[in-house]
Amino acid sequence: MVVELISVGTELLLGNIVNTNAAYLSEKLAALGLSCYHQSVVGDNEKRLEETVRQAVSRADIVILSGGLGPTKDDLTKEVTAKVFGRKLVEDEHTRERIAGYFSRMRSGNVTENNWKQALVPEGARVVDNYNGTAPGLIIEENGRIAILLPGPPNEIKPMFERDIVPYLRSLEPEGIYSKMVKICSIGESKAETMVLDLMENQSNPTIAPYAKTGEVHFRVTAKAADEKEADRLMEPMLKELFLRFGDKIYTTSEEVTLEEAVVELLKVKGLTLTTAESCTAGLLAGRIMNVSGASKVYNEGYITYSNAAKEKLVKVRRETLDKYGAVSKETAAEMAEGAAKAAEAGASVSVTGIAGPDGGTEEKPVGLVYIGCHVKGNTRTEEFIFTGNRAKNREYAVVRALTLLREELLKA
Amino acid sequence: MVVELISVGTELLLGNIVNTNAAYLSEKLAALGLSCYHQSVVGDNEKRLEETVRQAVSRADIVILSGGLGPTKDDLTKEVTAKVFGRKLVEDEHTRERIAGYFSRMRSGNVTENNWKQALVPEGARVVDNYNGTAPGLIIEENGRIAILLPGPPNEIKPMFERDIVPYLRSLEPEGIYSKMVKICSIGESKAETMVLDLMENQSNPTIAPYAKTGEVHFRVTAKAADEKEADRLMEPMLKELFLRFGDKIYTTSEEVTLEEAVVELLKVKGLTLTTAESCTAGLLAGRIMNVSGASKVYNEGYITYSNAAKEKLVKVRRETLDKYGAVSKETAAEMAEGAAKAAEAGASVSVTGIAGPDGGTEEKPVGLVYIGCHVKGNTRTEEFIFTGNRAKNREYAVVRALTLLREELLKA
Repeated sequence: MVVELISVGTELLLGNIVNTNAAYLSEKLAALGLSCYHQSVVGDNEKRLEETVRQAVSRADIVILSGGLGPTKDDLTKEVTAKVFGRKLVEDEHTRERIAGYFSRMRSGNVTENNWKQALVPEGARVVDNYNGTAPGLIIEENGRIAILLPGPPNEIKPMFERDIVPYLRSLEPEGIYSKMVKICSIGESKAETMVLDLMENQSNPTIAPYAKTGEVHFRVTAKAADEKEADRLMEPMLKELFLRFGDKIYTTSEEVTLEEAVVELLKVKGLTLTTAESCTAGLLAGRIMNVSGASKVYNEGYITYSNAAKEKLVKVRRETLDKYGAVSKETAAEMAEGAAKAAEAGASVSVTGIAGPDGGTEEKPVGLVYIGCHVKGNTRTEEFIFTGNRAKNREYAVVRALTLLREELLKA
Repeated sequence: MVVELISVGTELLLGNIVNTNAAYLSEKLAALGLSCYHQSVVGDNEKRLEETVRQAVSRADIVILSGGLGPTKDDLTKEVTAKVFGRKLVEDEHTRERIAGYFSRMRSGNVTENNWKQALVPEGARVVDNYNGTAPGLIIEENGRIAILLPGPPNEIKPMFERDIVPYLRSLEPEGIYSKMVKICSIGESKAETMVLDLMENQSNPTIAPYAKTGEVHFRVTAKAADEKEADRLMEPMLKELFLRFGDKIYTTSEEVTLEEAVVELLKVKGLTLTTAESCTAGLLAGRIMNVSGASKVYNEGYITYSNAAKEKLVKVRRETLDKYGAVSKETAAEMAEGAAKAAEAGASVSVTGIAGPDGGTEEKPVGLVYIGCHVKGNTRTEEFIFTGNRAKNREYAVVRALTLLREELLKA
């Protein structure tokens, strides 16, 4: 089945907010095996919204609209969609009660008159309760065409989608769609894709699709099956094949697990604590690792050593090394990692030193040159990278490469 | 004039990436006074892309396409747009040379054959050099209809848009549109908006529009005028009024300056160096400050003190303080800031300690509780915050609040 997304809101057209809802919905729909060929953004304008809805209804089986369900007269999504489907708006008693309850729980006391507008629903529509706001979700079905109306705020649309829309969409297909995300590091995007070209060309059930993330490659394996058990059975040979080809470059097959979570888990398994010594990334690497809840079990302290003096003082890089090879060098990266491990009494440590740009580059040491050092259980490894992005992107890549290198060394330890 | 955006890329339809380009372009176009009524996303599919381009050309004066200019056969934006405008593709000698130069600078050696595809341009198109990648930007003009083709990667599209597309768009309108971004911290979004409601209600030329960012409020002031000088004259009373109302809570009126840049600049002006001692943010604060190119002039070293032992060892928090008040307390935040300043011999320091969640909260100290300490020229100030987001959001807010607090203290110093 083909789905089309319409995001409604002048604030999107003005660039006031980023359309994260579209990315969220797209990924969820892809995971459900639904095809999405068009997405559009339109403002709170009756005529243009109506044209956009009519066009979408004419070319897709399911149209999902987000936003424009609020209480003000600018909010037109429900009114316009009802018009396109030839339905009038009627008050939904249940929603009226829910809104009253919501306001009393919020202790905001006075429900303004326009809030009751949100209790009006297109006749015959299915009402989807909103547990995080006032506007209900709505599903209109008519001759095999479906419109799904969802509230705009991310903290309302996401739980509503997970809880009620996913099961609804699943119910439309006789067969269910199930997927796993195979997440891979230590290999470039184009190489990884080349390695599965044959699988992508001959795919039917399950299918496989690549998702590039900064410094990682994700493959979503999706199966159509009567139930999850059957789906697992169908996906097994493909997963096995991927493990054969990528081995331990695969760090998880779970949707939720991040690279830093995999690294923290590995540190726990190996019984090691970690420390970091960062120059050009200046805390971003540690900051990312510590976004893992519970990372405190494997990380006690870290060092931001931007100046040469700090490299000497905090992580005992030798002055001769700095003088002879420079702060941005393999040798300094190695001593930073070794010195940090010693200072923090940690079994594992990672260091980053480089030229993030835009200034500071030379012929010999260009902007984007980064050395990463990794010291695990007494062994030190260093790697050289040349990144070609801007300052922010170079630092982001350096963080991912540092995590990847650390993971490789932890696997060996 | 009316502009329409088309973002090209199956990765957008699959939710692989978030469409930040659309938000970026929308905000820039709004700042130029151009109206945008429709945005769409379409995949790398010839037929659907052609339909989408034809529809956009039929209803807008200017169509901006981003993405799909790469070297692979999936990249169709240029081919399809040329077809819609009835142009054939011809090789652009200048672009071929630029691409050869780009690859030799990147030392990647071998230019693969498909890269030369990027030197093909629609006959008669204006070529816009890409200083950060290989695909050039392209402008096609035909009977008052304009198509502007831009590369997809944010680090390519943004500098190209700033450098060449903004002046081009300006040249199309007899009257220019000029704007300033008044960026404000130390005040909440709704309070800030309330304080300018009267200005927003009575606006004509200049206009004023709020943009909410995490922990900051931005107001864009936009004037229509014959030239920049006239625009400045028109905007002056509004800017004066905003300065009267917000005072030094306004940290810049420049589009490009970020809060961390304003802080780094202030440190330079005051002749102070900065250090950081971070617990729950674990490097994110330092990492953000060091995204300012040249911040090395004011920052030498910093400490990530996650464990209690690290707080004692690196920044000399007293054990009695930790025992009596706990690691997440006003007292610990104060000692972290004071100890860090001493250890780094820095005139200014900031500390962050808190419970980012989702675990670790108690009745007395809930998830989201964060203390920030700030020590500038011998004076210490601490503040308590309770954030209500998830772990990542709480840490992001803590970073902005720390920057804000530091700025306030630097202004007093």
